[in-house]
Amino acid sequence: MEGKVIITAALSGSATFKANNPAVPYSPKEFADEAEKCLKAGAAMVHIHARDEVLGGFHTSVVEKVKAVYDAIKQRVPDLIVQVTSSVGTPCPVGPFETTDCVNLINNLIKLNMEARLRSIRAIKPESASLNTNTMNFSVLDRKTGVIVIDNVFVNSFGMLQEFGKEMEAMGCRPEAEIYDMGGLDNWFLISKQGIFRKPYNFNFVWGVAGGHKFRPDTFASLVHALPEDSNFTTCAVGTEQYPAIMQSCLMGGHIRIGLEDNTRLPNGEMAKGSYEQVEVAVKVASCLGREPATPTEARKILGIQKKK
Amino acid sequence: MEGKVIITAALSGSATFKANNPAVPYSPKEFADEAEKCLKAGAAMVHIHARDEVLGGFHTSVVEKVKAVYDAIKQRVPDLIVQVTSSVGTPCPVGPFETTDCVNLINNLIKLNMEARLRSIRAIKPESASLNTNTMNFSVLDRKTGVIVIDNVFVNSFGMLQEFGKEMEAMGCRPEAEIYDMGGLDNWFLISKQGIFRKPYNFNFVWGVAGGHKFRPDTFASLVHALPEDSNFTTCAVGTEQYPAIMQSCLMGGHIRIGLEDNTRLPNGEMAKGSYEQVEVAVKVASCLGREPATPTEARKILGIQKKK
Amino acid sequence: MEGKVIITAALSGSATFKANNPAVPYSPKEFADEAEKCLKAGAAMVHIHARDEVLGGFHTSVVEKVKAVYDAIKQRVPDLIVQVTSSVGTPCPVGPFETTDCVNLINNLIKLNMEARLRSIRAIKPESASLNTNTMNFSVLDRKTGVIVIDNVFVNSFGMLQEFGKEMEAMGCRPEAEIYDMGGLDNWFLISKQGIFRKPYNFNFVWGVAGGHKFRPDTFASLVHALPEDSNFTTCAVGTEQYPAIMQSCLMGGHIRIGLEDNTRLPNGEMAKGSYEQVEVAVKVASCLGREPATPTEARKILGIQKKK
Amino acid sequence: MEGKVIITAALSGSATFKANNPAVPYSPKEFADEAEKCLKAGAAMVHIHARDEVLGGFHTSVVEKVKAVYDAIKQRVPDLIVQVTSSVGTPCPVGPFETTDCVNLINNLIKLNMEARLRSIRAIKPESASLNTNTMNFSVLDRKTGVIVIDNVFVNSFGMLQEFGKEMEAMGCRPEAEIYDMGGLDNWFLISKQGIFRKPYNFNFVWGVAGGHKFRPDTFASLVHALPEDSNFTTCAVGTEQYPAIMQSCLMGGHIRIGLEDNTRLPNGEMAKGSYEQVEVAVKVASCLGREPATPTEARKILGIQKKK
Repeated sequence: MEGKVIITAALSGSATFKANNPAVPYSPKEFADEAEKCLKAGAAMVHIHARDEVLGGFHTSVVEKVKAVYDAIKQRVPDLIVQVTSSVGTPCPVGPFETTDCVNLINNLIKLNMEARLRSIRAIKPESASLNTNTMNFSVLDRKTGVIVIDNVFVNSFGMLQEFGKEMEAMGCRPEAEIYDMGGLDNWFLISKQGIFRKPYNFNFVWGVAGGHKFRPDTFASLVHALPEDSNFTTCAVGTEQYPAIMQSCLMGGHIRIGLEDNTRLPNGEMAKGSYEQVEVAVKVASCLGREPATPTEARKILGIQKKK
Repeated sequence: MEGKVIITAALSGSATFKANNPAVPYSPKEFADEAEKCLKAGAAMVHIHARDEVLGGFHTSVVEKVKAVYDAIKQRVPDLIVQVTSSVGTPCPVGPFETTDCVNLINNLIKLNMEARLRSIRAIKPESASLNTNTMNFSVLDRKTGVIVIDNVFVNSFGMLQEFGKEMEAMGCRPEAEIYDMGGLDNWFLISKQGIFRKPYNFNFVWGVAGGHKFRPDTFASLVHALPEDSNFTTCAVGTEQYPAIMQSCLMGGHIRIGLEDNTRLPNGEMAKGSYEQVEVAVKVASCLGREPATPTEARKILGIQKKK
Repeated sequence: MEGKVIITAALSGSATFKANNPAVPYSPKEFADEAEKCLKAGAAMVHIHARDEVLGGFHTSVVEKVKAVYDAIKQRVPDLIVQVTSSVGTPCPVGPFETTDCVNLINNLIKLNMEARLRSIRAIKPESASLNTNTMNFSVLDRKTGVIVIDNVFVNSFGMLQEFGKEMEAMGCRPEAEIYDMGGLDNWFLISKQGIFRKPYNFNFVWGVAGGHKFRPDTFASLVHALPEDSNFTTCAVGTEQYPAIMQSCLMGGHIRIGLEDNTRLPNGEMAKGSYEQVEVAVKVASCLGREPATPTEARKILGIQKKK
Repeated sequence: MEGKVIITAALSGSATFKANNPAVPYSPKEFADEAEKCLKAGAAMVHIHARDEVLGGFHTSVVEKVKAVYDAIKQRVPDLIVQVTSSVGTPCPVGPFETTDCVNLINNLIKLNMEARLRSIRAIKPESASLNTNTMNFSVLDRKTGVIVIDNVFVNSFGMLQEFGKEMEAMGCRPEAEIYDMGGLDNWFLISKQGIFRKPYNFNFVWGVAGGHKFRPDTFASLVHALPEDSNFTTCAVGTEQYPAIMQSCLMGGHIRIGLEDNTRLPNGEMAKGSYEQVEVAVKVASCLGREPATPTEARKILGIQKKK
C-alpha cells in the first residue's frame, strides 16, 4: 500500500454546468455513468454535489435528490467511496424572521443554512463528507479585468466547524477538511482542541477559488510542514492551477483530487470528455513518480474509513 | 530615508477593553495622550478604532465619535499620520427588512454594513485607512480547550473591496490592505486588475486572529515573495505572536505595527502601560538591525501619502 | 514558444557504468545512437561526458576522445544542442611538484585540474558547457548504512568559476551554472559582479549528490525566488529524487534535465533502455501540464545560444 | 528552562584581525578578559580559535597555544562552556610527498590536515567542539566588484566528518554541526546513519561566507523544517547578515551565536568594543521576545553537555 495515491474525482460541483462542459452529470444515471468510468480509470473515491436536472441543473440540498445520486452510484459501483459535500444548503428556506433583532436574524440564517447543509449527510450517513474550514468570499470575477460577476460569501463559522465535525465523526462519516485559505488549517487546529476528530486527519488543500489562496509551491510546502502528525493530504485547484497543484501534491507524497467540478479541461486546453479523462491524467502523473492508484479498499485503509455494509 | 522603519501604533481596536488593560483609550483625550506618547516613542502613525466611553467602551462607527477622536489627536500632534479603520459598522442599523427574499436581505445587510463602515472615512477623509481583504471568521476561542467564546463572521466581499478601494483612492486616502489570511492578497490581486490602486501599494500582514492564518516564518516569506512590485509591507499579530511577527517583518525590510489593539502585554508578559511601551520595544528591535524609526514625514514619503493641510 | 519546456538528456555522466545500465554509451557511435533517440523522443539538448571505452569506460578529458563523441553526435543530428561538461579533468597529469611548499602545491594541482577541464571546451567551442559553482564533497555512500564507499572532493574555486565563465562567454559558449548546493547560487552572484555573464542566465539545480543538497520543494522554491531577472532554470537529481525534482521544475515553469547520468531507472523501478526512455517520461510530465518540448531551435532562443555554423 | 536562549560568543575566528577591530583577542589573557565580559553580558558559551600573537595574530593549531587560551578562560570563568574549533590545521605540516601518485598525495594532505585539526581537541577534550559539514570555498571577495581577494578551499570530506564525529562523541565532547550550505545538513544525515551521534543533535546554521549560502528567511525555515527530532539549532552570519540571522533564529525558538569572528561591528555600524557588546545586542533581541539568556548550566542541559570536572 506504500506509495499508493488516492485519486478522488469531483464529478460536478455547484458552479460547472453542461453549458461549460456537456459531460457534467445532472441526473442520477449520469452520475453513476461518470463514477463507473472514473473507478475504471483509477479513482478510489468520488466527491458529489447533487444537481437539480429539472431546475436547470442548479445544485440542490434536497435530501431525496442527493440520496438518489448517492444510491445510483452505490448500486452501480458499490465498492467506490462516495464523499458527499456539506457545502450546499438552501440559502433561505423559511421566513418571516424577527427583523428588528439583526444579530439574531443572522444567527438564525447561519443555523438554517447549517441545518440545510447537514440534512443529506444525516440522511445518507456516507463514508466521507467534506468539512469546510474557511469563511470566505466565494465569487466569480473576470480574471483579466477584475470585474465582479457573482459576489458571494461562503460562511463556515467555528460553530459550524464544530457541529459538522462532531456529527460526522459520531455517525462514522470521516470528514475531509477543506482548506481554501492557509488560515483554514489554523481554524481546524483551534476547534480540534476539543478532541472532535479521530486520526488519521484528512485534509484537502483547495486552490484558486476567487476568495481563497492561489496555488504557490512555497505556500503548499508551508501547509504540509504545518500539518499535525497522522495526517493525509490531497489537493484540488480551480481552472489552470489544477494540474500544477495535483503534481505538487503527488510529488510530496500527497493524494489527488481532480474532476469537472474544478476544471472542465484537459492539460492541453481541450474540453474533457468527463472527469474520468482527468483521472487518466492523474494516473499518468502518479506513474511518472512510480506511484500507483489506490483501490477503494486501500484508500479506506489510508484514510481511516470503515466501509458501510 | 533608506532603511527607516515605519512604526504604527494601533491604540485601541475593538476587542481590547480597559478590563484587559486599563491603558486602552476610550475618550478623545485618552487617545490624544496615547498618540502623543507613541509619537515621542518613535511611531509615525496611529491606527484608530473609536470607542464609546458611555456605552462601556464598545467600538463605534458613529461619525461624531470617530471624528472627535481623530480631531483630538490631530490637534495634539498634527504631524502624526492618523489611520482610520474601515472595519467597524453598526451591525444592524435599520429595519424592518423584506424577510421573504433572503438573498436580497443578506445583500441589504452587507450594503448597510458597508455604508456604516465608510461613513467616518467619508466624513474625515483621513490620510490613510485600513482596507480589509478577507471575509473570514473573527471569533474568540479558548486557545487551550478550543471552546468557542464568541463566534463572529467578518464580511469583506469583493464588492466592498472594490467600493472601499475606489472611494479611498478618490478622496486621497491611502488604503492599507489588511491580509488576515494568505488569500487576502489574492483577493487584492483580483480586484486590483480594475486599476483601482495607486502605487506604492501598502500591505499589512495580520496574524493570529481566530479565523485567519497563524504566524509562520515560511508563510511570511511566501507572502513577501508574492507581493507586487512597488509594495511596502508591515505586520501585526494577535497576542504572543506579536513580537516574533514584527521581528520577522523588520529583519526582512518591512515595517511594524504594534499596540494594545493586538496585544496588551510586553514581551516579558507584563501589562504594557500603553501602546507607547510597545513602540519602545519596536524601536529596540529596529535598533538591533541598525534601523531607525521613520518620522511621519519620512513615512508619508515611503507610503505615498500626501499630507492633508 | 511560450510554455515550451527544454528537455536535456544527460547521456552518460562519470559514475554510471554499463555494469549499472548496459545502455550507458561509451563509444562515439553509442553516443550518437542515444542522442538521436533522445532528439526523437523530445530532447533539445544532450549533456555529455566522454568515456574511455578501452579503459573500462572511465570518464576522460582527453581532447580527442571528447571531440570524437561530440563530432559523432553532431554528424548524426546536427540540429541538437550538445552541451559539454567542464567537470572532468585528469586528477594528476604531471609531476613531480615542489613538495615542500604545500600551498603552492595545492594551487598547482587546482590549476592543472582547471586546465585539464577546460581543454576540451577550448578545442570544441561547443554551444553550451556546464559551469560548476560549488566546491563540495562528491562521494558515494551507502544510503542505508552511511558507510563511505568513495570519498572525493570536487573543487570549483572562485578562481575557476571566474576563468571558466570568462573563457566560455568569450568563445560564444553559453555556460549553464550547476547549483549543487544552495550556496552555489550565491557564489555565482558574487563572481558575476565582475560582469562576466551575458543574459539570459541559465541555471541547473542539481539535487541528491552525496555532498550537495537533497531535493526539497521548499528549498527549490527558495532557489527560484532568489534567481536574478532574466534567468532560465532547469533541474536534475540523482537516483529516486529525479522524477519529483523534474516535476517540481516543470510545474514552476522551469526546464528538465534527465538521463542515465543521474538515474539508471524508470519511475517504476525498471532499468531504462536508454536516456531516451526517460526523455519520454519528461515529455509525459510536461504534457500533464499542457507544455510541449522545445525544439533545439526554440531552446536556443530561450537560452540565448547562437547556433554554430 | 523553557524558552531560554543560549548565546555563544565567537571571540576571534581566523580571519578577523586587530587591524579590523582592536578588540579581537590574541593572547590568552585577552581571551580570558573577553570571555569574562561575555559571560557577564549573558553568554553561556564561547567559541575559540587560538591566535599566534607572535606571528601577527594568525590562527594556529599548535596544541600548546590552543591549550593556553583554553586554560586561561577556564581559570578565569570555570563555569563558562568553551567550545574549541576543529577547523584549523596547519595547511602543510610536513613533506616531501610521493609526488607521482596524485590521488595518494591529496589523500595524504587531507589526512595530515585532519590530524592537525584534531590535535587540540584530543589534547583538551573540551565539552564541545565545532564539526564542519561542508567542503566548500572559503574565500574573500570584494562584495561590490566581485574581485577575488583570497581564494581558498575548506575541505571537510565525509571521512573527516566521520572521524571527527566519532572521536568527539567518544571523548565526551559534544559536536556542534556547522551548516555553511544547505547540503551540509544532508551530509550530516548521510554520515549519521552510522549511528555516530548522540542526542540531542546540535546544529549551527552559518550564513554569508563567500562559498556558503547567504541568509534568506525561507532557506532558514527550510533548514529548520528539515532538522531531525531532538535537535537544537543556533545561527551565526558574516558581516551585515549577522543581526537579521540571529533574530530569525531567536524568533523561531533557536539560539544565537555572535561575536567578532563573524562581524566586527554593532548594528548601527560602529565598531564593537568587544564580542560582549554584541552579546548585549543578542540579549536585547531575546528580551524583545520575552526570552532570557541561558546560564552555562542551563545551556549544558539543553545541549546534552556533561560538565567536565
